[in-house]
Amino acid sequence: MKKRIDKSLAFREKEFNLRPWQLKVQEVIYGTYTKTGKAFDIILLIIILLSVVVVMLESVSYLNLKYRLTFITIEWIVTGLFTIEYILRIVSLRKPLSYIFSFMGLVDLFSILPSYLSLMVDGTAALMILRSIRFLRIFRILRLSRYMLGADILGEALKNSRHKITVFLISMLTIVIILGGLMYVIEPSEAGFTSIPRSVYWAIITITTVGYGDIAPVTPLGQAVASFIMLFGYAIIAVPTGIVSSEFTNIKSEGMKAFECPNCGEKDHKKAAKFCRSCGYEFKD
Amino acid sequence: MKKRIDKSLAFREKEFNLRPWQLKVQEVIYGTYTKTGKAFDIILLIIILLSVVVVMLESVSYLNLKYRLTFITIEWIVTGLFTIEYILRIVSLRKPLSYIFSFMGLVDLFSILPSYLSLMVDGTAALMILRSIRFLRIFRILRLSRYMLGADILGEALKNSRHKITVFLISMLTIVIILGGLMYVIEPSEAGFTSIPRSVYWAIITITTVGYGDIAPVTPLGQAVASFIMLFGYAIIAVPTGIVSSEFTNIKSEGMKAFECPNCGEKDHKKAAKFCRSCGYEFKD
Amino acid sequence: MKKRIDKSLAFREKEFNLRPWQLKVQEVIYGTYTKTGKAFDIILLIIILLSVVVVMLESVSYLNLKYRLTFITIEWIVTGLFTIEYILRIVSLRKPLSYIFSFMGLVDLFSILPSYLSLMVDGTAALMILRSIRFLRIFRILRLSRYMLGADILGEALKNSRHKITVFLISMLTIVIILGGLMYVIEPSEAGFTSIPRSVYWAIITITTVGYGDIAPVTPLGQAVASFIMLFGYAIIAVPTGIVSSEFTNIKSEGMKAFECPNCGEKDHKKAAKFCRSCGYEFKD
Amino acid sequence: MKKRIDKSLAFREKEFNLRPWQLKVQEVIYGTYTKTGKAFDIILLIIILLSVVVVMLESVSYLNLKYRLTFITIEWIVTGLFTIEYILRIVSLRKPLSYIFSFMGLVDLFSILPSYLSLMVDGTAALMILRSIRFLRIFRILRLSRYMLGADILGEALKNSRHKITVFLISMLTIVIILGGLMYVIEPSEAGFTSIPRSVYWAIITITTVGYGDIAPVTPLGQAVASFIMLFGYAIIAVPTGIVSSEFTNIKSEGMKAFECPNCGEKDHKKAAKFCRSCGYEFKD
Repeated sequence: MKKRIDKSLAFREKEFNLRPWQLKVQEVIYGTYTKTGKAFDIILLIIILLSVVVVMLESVSYLNLKYRLTFITIEWIVTGLFTIEYILRIVSLRKPLSYIFSFMGLVDLFSILPSYLSLMVDGTAALMILRSIRFLRIFRILRLSRYMLGADILGEALKNSRHKITVFLISMLTIVIILGGLMYVIEPSEAGFTSIPRSVYWAIITITTVGYGDIAPVTPLGQAVASFIMLFGYAIIAVPTGIVSSEFTNIKSEGMKAFECPNCGEKDHKKAAKFCRSCGYEFKD
Repeated sequence: MKKRIDKSLAFREKEFNLRPWQLKVQEVIYGTYTKTGKAFDIILLIIILLSVVVVMLESVSYLNLKYRLTFITIEWIVTGLFTIEYILRIVSLRKPLSYIFSFMGLVDLFSILPSYLSLMVDGTAALMILRSIRFLRIFRILRLSRYMLGADILGEALKNSRHKITVFLISMLTIVIILGGLMYVIEPSEAGFTSIPRSVYWAIITITTVGYGDIAPVTPLGQAVASFIMLFGYAIIAVPTGIVSSEFTNIKSEGMKAFECPNCGEKDHKKAAKFCRSCGYEFKD
Repeated sequence: MKKRIDKSLAFREKEFNLRPWQLKVQEVIYGTYTKTGKAFDIILLIIILLSVVVVMLESVSYLNLKYRLTFITIEWIVTGLFTIEYILRIVSLRKPLSYIFSFMGLVDLFSILPSYLSLMVDGTAALMILRSIRFLRIFRILRLSRYMLGADILGEALKNSRHKITVFLISMLTIVIILGGLMYVIEPSEAGFTSIPRSVYWAIITITTVGYGDIAPVTPLGQAVASFIMLFGYAIIAVPTGIVSSEFTNIKSEGMKAFECPNCGEKDHKKAAKFCRSCGYEFKD
Repeated sequence: MKKRIDKSLAFREKEFNLRPWQLKVQEVIYGTYTKTGKAFDIILLIIILLSVVVVMLESVSYLNLKYRLTFITIEWIVTGLFTIEYILRIVSLRKPLSYIFSFMGLVDLFSILPSYLSLMVDGTAALMILRSIRFLRIFRILRLSRYMLGADILGEALKNSRHKITVFLISMLTIVIILGGLMYVIEPSEAGFTSIPRSVYWAIITITTVGYGDIAPVTPLGQAVASFIMLFGYAIIAVPTGIVSSEFTNIKSEGMKAFECPNCGEKDHKKAAKFCRSCGYEFKD
């Protein structure tokens, strides 16, 4: 956690040629541990949630008929606030371009764009998805250190295991394609197995244990193959779990046995240790 | 376990100015290791189960028609016993208020309230839920030490991993909202995707591998997106599992290497340590 | 594994007052590592599988019409062989009663009983289940050491975690009963929520991520509660997994760090070690 | 990884009596780390994917009517390229037979066979499955070291746990057969439980938490048994996960404490060991 805070301080120090109001704006918008920064985060959280709830309710036809004006009003207020925030973010930074083209910068942009586009274009459907993307802004709030640590560990565990997960996904894809092809031949098209892509879709539904039941085998042979896929899917769910679990355990134990005693070479110390657990040598770092 | 028992003894010692009958009642009601306490627990367990079974069967219309009188009789007997128990719990304590407003105290109150309310009000439906809450009383029986230890470990593992699980749930929520919005645009409303909230509901059904099949994509593009959500949901089930698993392993291994330095009180030593990691004191055991 | 074999030898040594033919029969029937014992196991495996396949196919009405005679013939041959085996098991033992009333002994008895009962009684349905029980005999074949070790570890892991799993199951039961009661009030009976037991049945279908779809919420509020149950079920599947995983890891690591060096006290040795890894002292066990 | 590369070099050295063009072909086709080898892999990947996509789309009837000629053309181009590759693989090896009858060799053969067979035979259905098998060729691309390591660990974890998984699968099979038999007796055939095999199929759908809903219990007793199967299936998913997880953890930690004694060759030492656990030899590194 310490490294993270230091980096953020270093960041601010380098920007000493900013005007006072820019520093003030930064403290509010980018600050995580300051009082005003926290208040800003909470207000932002409420606006994001409100805005996403409005997008969702607007799609419910009878609610849209009834509260159309309310929804449009809230939408434009939210868009206004987001636009002000977006402009403040840009003008308060020395190098605004790196923010604009960062992932979160683009998310911020796409949070306000759809409303302005709707004035010109008429494609409500596509704009609706863009407006859903707004929910990604929620990750801004997770800057809070205790969540970031969790997110860091999650991210690292997933990153470390990406090769194994790739192999696993390719193996699963191979299985569903071959078994999907097999079921297309075995089952009659009346049961829903009208093409190989549809059969593969069914195989994915089955192997992941989702099981909609919109397509289901009707012949005894097909049901036998289906049983095999189910048992297989049930057994191999252990594989991604095992991969990620062992990564978590690994990350944890690595964080605990970091450094070597310069006197006796004993390696198995916790990071916080002040004395070697083997020879009693005092560490002076 | 020792700490738990000590605390309970300390609790009783402080209450020395209680009358003998109050101590006797306490021994029966709150006692876990005494003979009478165990007998009380078993009788309580039977009454709770009987009472919940009656609540459930009462909701089956043809059984209610047939055995209405039996159900009402049992209900009032149970309510009577629970009321007596509730009064005894209160009068036998020196500070009854802290019990009354504790979680289990409120559960105890809500276990008897619905029956008395039903004499005055006529809202059977709402009262039925309140009566189901009665089942929470089952946790009283779990006071038995061997279950409490299990519950403690469960609780601690979940508590330790709450930040990671929060990040995980927010990530999942983000995914289902964005993919739900996408599916609302892709799929026709005839397939059940009539609004974004419904589409999000479908996305949750799919990503958690529940798969009712009441709403299911019909277009090839929608089925492709659905396949992606399923594979994703299947892969990321590893994440909560990995989080909790590593916590369990952690709690276990930590419980194995915890002894205290007699010099400085530092607790966090491995069993094999020869010197205190904090003050360098040499262990001579 | 060594202990297991020793025990089996000790068993045979005590039975020295058995006749030679009894020892021979024992070698064939109970022997796991002898040539004849292995051959017997394989033949038994084939007969068990054949017999269970016949029970299953017999229940398919059109196959039963067509091959009725074949099925009955196979059934009686299998019953005959099982009867002979059962008698041989009894007569070759010095204390047959402990076998007869053991779990596997009762399974053996119930494997032959239904056929004889069918001559007297006419309840085909009940007898059919009894005949399915025959499949339990498959566990006889698993006597082979390498599977037994696996089964032992499985069994121990489940045994060690039984208290935690009990707490977990009671918690789940509490949740499904309360949420089932809630859904019964929220949802109309047309959606399938006709009684609390049925609603609890639905809650179990949902929380375990099975999701038949025969009962599914239709009101927005009901769907919101359902979404919560699904996410909850998806998250807490980590709990039993974490419990069992940590037990497995535990059993493994315990088997590895068994005993103490009498010279320097170093504890962290593998069972197979001949010298202390810390001071080089030679173990003379 | 080093061992893998060494072996591959040794392989090539032994083939010194190959002609230059054979070595060149080998470098392209079998090379993983060479520039041309990588380019070849990427082109092969694209062709395989294209070919599988064509097989899948061809099965969609309206697409087949529209683009029939395009599909056939692509199919024959792919078959041509695969044939050339297959011949090159054979002629560039000194011992082509061991390749031809290897698993990947047969996959390569079955990738081109169906097209040629379609000229003679008329069984489109069976040929379609054979063509799906082509997707297995994707594993050729996974030769890349970083994926192979992942695949190796996956493979080893599954191999180490095969006995435990066998015991687990047999136990599950026993449960579904007995509970399937039970449900066949309990439930009316109108609910879909028309025979024991179908009931077992339903039990598999339920215990693996797939839950199609094509067959679902309708009687209260049947639903109670179903609830039990679901909770059971939900709880025991922990078992394969626990098995595989602990294997992963095991492989990892073992990979960390393996160095060899220079005196006796004993391999199984912890990193911290100062003396060989087998012969007492003192390590002086």
